[in-house]
Amino acid sequence: MGAGLAEAKSVALFKSAQLEVLRMVLMAGKAMPVHQVPGEITLQCIEGALEVSVDGHKQVLRAGQLMFLSGAVPHGVVAVENASALLTIVLRG
Amino acid sequence: MGAGLAEAKSVALFKSAQLEVLRMVLMAGKAMPVHQVPGEITLQCIEGALEVSVDGHKQVLRAGQLMFLSGAVPHGVVAVENASALLTIVLRG
Repeated sequence: MGAGLAEAKSVALFKSAQLEVLRMVLMAGKAMPVHQVPGEITLQCIEGALEVSVDGHKQVLRAGQLMFLSGAVPHGVVAVENASALLTIVLRG
Repeated sequence: MGAGLAEAKSVALFKSAQLEVLRMVLMAGKAMPVHQVPGEITLQCIEGALEVSVDGHKQVLRAGQLMFLSGAVPHGVVAVENASALLTIVLRG
């Protein structure tokens, strides 16, 4: 999204029988508090950088990097830089 | 992968309980013949361009674009340009 990132919002791209796919936009310093979902997740950083916390371990995810999270794992996300990411969640079938 | 794309190979990134994620590399003119898998799929073009065929309909997917395919849908892929893509397949749980 480049220069448009600061005005962009998180958006649900689609929800199917087995998948929910969202584009997440998080400005530097903003956070998603620790939460969990039943299904497995991939989180792909598209722009900027996100710090993902799982069980007290922190991992920075930069543009082009992909992270896998098992289902039901509590995790939190903080934007280290203005960031957009593609979030893919498996729905329990 | 940029200049390294021509030497790159398709690779399985991981397989979990619910997901299989692969990086697909396909050189211009090369094809994956029509095939199908039981689970739903997202195909994200990372570099280059792919033409995806579903039921006789063709759709070109360029870098940054994401396509969703329902499970059990026969589909074929031809690289229009040297391409890499991220392929996410839901495994039946």
